[in-house]
Amino acid sequence: MDMENRKFDYEVIEEIKTRWSPRAFDPERTVPEDDLMGMLEAARYAPSCFNEQPWRFIVGRRGDSNFERIKAALTDSNREWASKASVLMMILSVQKFEKNQKPNRWHLFDAGTAWGYLSLEAERRGLITHAMAGYNRDQIREAFSVPEELSIIAAVAVGYYGDKASLSQKNFENEKPSPRNSIQDLLYQSQAIE
Amino acid sequence: MDMENRKFDYEVIEEIKTRWSPRAFDPERTVPEDDLMGMLEAARYAPSCFNEQPWRFIVGRRGDSNFERIKAALTDSNREWASKASVLMMILSVQKFEKNQKPNRWHLFDAGTAWGYLSLEAERRGLITHAMAGYNRDQIREAFSVPEELSIIAAVAVGYYGDKASLSQKNFENEKPSPRNSIQDLLYQSQAIE
Repeated sequence: MDMENRKFDYEVIEEIKTRWSPRAFDPERTVPEDDLMGMLEAARYAPSCFNEQPWRFIVGRRGDSNFERIKAALTDSNREWASKASVLMMILSVQKFEKNQKPNRWHLFDAGTAWGYLSLEAERRGLITHAMAGYNRDQIREAFSVPEELSIIAAVAVGYYGDKASLSQKNFENEKPSPRNSIQDLLYQSQAIE
Repeated sequence: MDMENRKFDYEVIEEIKTRWSPRAFDPERTVPEDDLMGMLEAARYAPSCFNEQPWRFIVGRRGDSNFERIKAALTDSNREWASKASVLMMILSVQKFEKNQKPNRWHLFDAGTAWGYLSLEAERRGLITHAMAGYNRDQIREAFSVPEELSIIAAVAVGYYGDKASLSQKNFENEKPSPRNSIQDLLYQSQAIE
């Protein structure tokens, strides 16, 4: 793998170093139950505002109706490669606090943290993940009868690395880890770290 | 540590298992530069929609003006314990895509993923973290001249575990890892996993 865009100046968790978002999924392999549950186990231990745990997941496995419904809602360009994944998931979040039904300003942020944990646990288990913004949200809402109180945030493809040569020319050329901004670019009022 | 609320049915990354959100920070120790930068290095390798990397951080270290400004904006109940942290950070996010200035629906979600990576890297380095929703947002916006185009999401205390006995009675009693919902509770249309 071409890791030219992943130069680490500081040591970090192995799975953070090796994780990226490939498209070349293996259309044959299936994800063992234990790995799928392990990913969800990781997600559920994310921290959240008032421990509200607003994250929810729809999980589809190749061949089941959840998988087919998620696959059908993807954009054509995502469906092309993501339909070869072993698992298609949707990440949702609950918009209001359970306790008092007031708006939870952190539900998207907290769901992102849970997705972060899930993505790293998948990596530890030898799985690849690729989150997607490209899908028809209304179609997902209707297909799974998701009430308006839940946000539909992202689709995620999960599976095993397959054959890069099976990708379209465009995806083939982009099939490598993406670059990142420098740490200094992330620091607002960066005089903080001198 | 009382880990009664952390029973893992599936193996997950060590840092996910051991991380929680304590309040008993050590008011003496300081975080080495390398650890602080390592945390930000972890954050910057999080995935994001179109690789936009919308997360931003304000970092204050005990004694500097960023730390004092964040500390001043915390609610009294948070300031009581969080002022003993070695580092106080603010997590921000850029609301629009850089490329076309259209609203980025995923900026909070992606910032949550980056925070997730940061929190685990801190844990690996022996640091404790505690994210807080309790602070005066307007005060932060004014103190750091944060433009309206950036969301101010959360404050985070970072440091070393100190003396639990230094906590108030209420915080002392709550000083343990919080419980979690079951995996089944997180599955929307949970027939997916049988």
